Amino acid sequence: MNFKMMGRFIAQILLLEAVFMIPALLISLFDQAYKAAWSFVAAIVVICVFAGLLLLICHKKRNGFYAREGLASVGFGWIALSLGGCLPFYFSREIPHFLDALFEIVSGFTTTGASILPEVESLSRGILYWRSFSHWLGGMGVLVFLLAVAPGSKSNGFTMHLMRAESPGPNVGKLVPRIRSTARILYLIYVLLTVINFLFLFLGGMPLFDSVCTAFGTAGTGGFGIKNDSIAGYSPYLQNVCTVFMLLFGINFSCYYLLLMRQFKNVFRDEELRLYLGLVAGSIILIVINLKDTYGTLAETVRHAAFQVSSIITTTGFATTDFDLWPEFSKALLLCLMLVGACAGSTGGGFKCGRVLLLFKSLHRNIRKILHPQKVQVIRNNNQMVEESVLDNTNAYLAAYVVIIVASVLIVSLDNFSLTTSLSAVVACFNNIGPGLDAVGPTCNFGDFGILSKLILIADMLAGRLEIFPILVLFSRSTWRHR
Amino acid sequence: MNFKMMGRFIAQILLLEAVFMIPALLISLFDQAYKAAWSFVAAIVVICVFAGLLLLICHKKRNGFYAREGLASVGFGWIALSLGGCLPFYFSREIPHFLDALFEIVSGFTTTGASILPEVESLSRGILYWRSFSHWLGGMGVLVFLLAVAPGSKSNGFTMHLMRAESPGPNVGKLVPRIRSTARILYLIYVLLTVINFLFLFLGGMPLFDSVCTAFGTAGTGGFGIKNDSIAGYSPYLQNVCTVFMLLFGINFSCYYLLLMRQFKNVFRDEELRLYLGLVAGSIILIVINLKDTYGTLAETVRHAAFQVSSIITTTGFATTDFDLWPEFSKALLLCLMLVGACAGSTGGGFKCGRVLLLFKSLHRNIRKILHPQKVQVIRNNNQMVEESVLDNTNAYLAAYVVIIVASVLIVSLDNFSLTTSLSAVVACFNNIGPGLDAVGPTCNFGDFGILSKLILIADMLAGRLEIFPILVLFSRSTWRHR
Repeated sequence: MNFKMMGRFIAQILLLEAVFMIPALLISLFDQAYKAAWSFVAAIVVICVFAGLLLLICHKKRNGFYAREGLASVGFGWIALSLGGCLPFYFSREIPHFLDALFEIVSGFTTTGASILPEVESLSRGILYWRSFSHWLGGMGVLVFLLAVAPGSKSNGFTMHLMRAESPGPNVGKLVPRIRSTARILYLIYVLLTVINFLFLFLGGMPLFDSVCTAFGTAGTGGFGIKNDSIAGYSPYLQNVCTVFMLLFGINFSCYYLLLMRQFKNVFRDEELRLYLGLVAGSIILIVINLKDTYGTLAETVRHAAFQVSSIITTTGFATTDFDLWPEFSKALLLCLMLVGACAGSTGGGFKCGRVLLLFKSLHRNIRKILHPQKVQVIRNNNQMVEESVLDNTNAYLAAYVVIIVASVLIVSLDNFSLTTSLSAVVACFNNIGPGLDAVGPTCNFGDFGILSKLILIADMLAGRLEIFPILVLFSRSTWRHR
Repeated sequence: MNFKMMGRFIAQILLLEAVFMIPALLISLFDQAYKAAWSFVAAIVVICVFAGLLLLICHKKRNGFYAREGLASVGFGWIALSLGGCLPFYFSREIPHFLDALFEIVSGFTTTGASILPEVESLSRGILYWRSFSHWLGGMGVLVFLLAVAPGSKSNGFTMHLMRAESPGPNVGKLVPRIRSTARILYLIYVLLTVINFLFLFLGGMPLFDSVCTAFGTAGTGGFGIKNDSIAGYSPYLQNVCTVFMLLFGINFSCYYLLLMRQFKNVFRDEELRLYLGLVAGSIILIVINLKDTYGTLAETVRHAAFQVSSIITTTGFATTDFDLWPEFSKALLLCLMLVGACAGSTGGGFKCGRVLLLFKSLHRNIRKILHPQKVQVIRNNNQMVEESVLDNTNAYLAAYVVIIVASVLIVSLDNFSLTTSLSAVVACFNNIGPGLDAVGPTCNFGDFGILSKLILIADMLAGRLEIFPILVLFSRSTWRHR
């Protein structure tokens, strides 16, 4: 294992985090919230000292950076990022327990949006900003950001391993031959869409600070709100803006690149995009029918259904209504959408529509194989042959996914909450959604869980965001063995 | 598709079913329950007429019997068997609705043990006998029985396709080169174990009729009881006998063959057997700790824990206590055991321990593959290389398993029962267990579900028993296409 290179890499991530804390510090100073400001200063100092020590220890260059180093860097990088990021919460005493602070920031970086706070309006604005910004940073990936902006002579192989480990989806599409350029294009699209989202909110009458934080939460498909009632208090126009932008951020970003390149046909023929939009439309219709007379008018029903469906399938987790009170079918449908998640290559979490597609295709192939054992059967996606290794990986992903959910539910159920609570809490954390059902429904929070459950849910959030393997390899013997 | 051969095959199954109704008819006559007796006569007549018509239509011989014919024969055969088997329930009006009668007999043949009856003690003994016997017949497989006893010149290929389609587990082990002999050996072991089970019960003080029915229910890992409180009313000794025999019937029958062949080493080194027994022991210990002071003494706690764990992991579904009242952890653990199920090649249902083993091994291989992409990695089971096609099949099975459970829960939730109810009902039916949690817990029944839910649950039971593909291929276009 190339620890020196990993160490330097993690130090860079931490320094970047310290830089990103400065806006939050300035907001705290502007608000004269000196306790919060002090906590940011303290956090920045601690992080810088730690990063400096890491750089000192790992100063020697050594070559050799392979898949396992890429995966382990991402795993350790995110753990370091979380440990550093929770310091302002903890130092300011706005979240008095360290584990709760860690839960909150992991929920932020992984764009989960599950909170241990019973209410958020008493938090200072600097802390609220940092909380929402963590969504934005985690959405596209902090390592990808580093790749996009940091100078240096990193090779294409090095960056490819990192990008592959941090980016969601069964296979990472290179938009252009150089990975670094791909990362830059992705971030450019990300920034652009976030700004447009912000403008739609701000010009629609949302206060400046609210617009910034809501845009961060939407862009990262995170879901931390700055109001106790999430998005319910804003006007129907603002809610609809959120609905649309949540859906947009759940689409594979390479689609936007293709749009910019004027390859419209390829976008509209994209099978994953079709499945995603089909699922959204179908779910909205089914829920509207199921809700019948729950709300006053059909328009209001459609608005709530569309908002909640978009919020859940993109794994954002904003809410405009307490869907825990909806009929069981609608709740079960939302739970299914939680499992499916958004498109690969978006900021959304979950199993990903692309994987669902591959799973169905590979299931169909298996049936054909049973019926006609002699024929060679190939799976195609968007008219391109899918490599067997991608299929193997998708199957392994499903297996790991099921095993982790089952094991987590088992441990979380030790807290003796109802099965619906335990199951939906695990599903909501693992798929980076945020609110679940029952005792972790949209009007409730994760604060009542025990220490063990919180640790498990933190691990689930990280494993979900990083798509399992970067966390799993940390526990594999062959990661640590000498080559 | 070779319809003629399939038709003749289904006719044979139906005639066999008619023969098996005769003991139930005799019991009804002996009890002077003439309404029940008449219903058996009517059912036998209807079945024979239908089988005769089938034989008339399909009298011409035609060769060509492949995997798809094997799968479709099993699928259609079981549907025909169920439609015939529910007639006595329906004709005698002891179950007045046809769909309920069908649910009950499908639950019987698939060895599920889920009932729509609020109480069973008012049923006549002939009907009770037929209900329990359906477990025994379904446990080892009616087509396998036909292969074992029916004379004829069926080729080894023909029988292999059928055996593979009806027998549970990732790959069918041939004990001896000839499939027909394998089927005979399996049935011999099955009959022998059932008789021993009966003797232990009968000599332990259980009434004759109860012993026969309970032995049938245990052998098939079915779970239909003939008392309203299932097994709770019998003595601790009898309950322990059930615990032990449930576990025995959940073991791969090839282990018994190896024992008879004195290959003790191979049995004790069997990885699936070790996992199965390990899961049972571990779960009992965890539940005993979790239950703490729920029961009077430690001995009673262990007895209840051991009984329920054995009943659930073997997918039998007998109960001695209402585990729906247990703490959430124990309930979640039981739900996990429901998903895992018994060993491949046993009469138990579920995903099967053998598949869980393969899944973990293939997951581990995938991690090694990610870390060392150049190396060729082989999976071994009991020191034998596992073929890639078996792994593909296991993965496809998991995918189909997850998809079917999710889709079924969605439809069943239209009845607006709690998520725990809908989920555990689907899991309990699909894995052929019987009782679930909440509104389908061990003291409740499936009678309150709507028509659509009952149809879905019937399909789930069949798909679960036949391991999905024989039912799935009935819906595939390429099954019906001309070669």
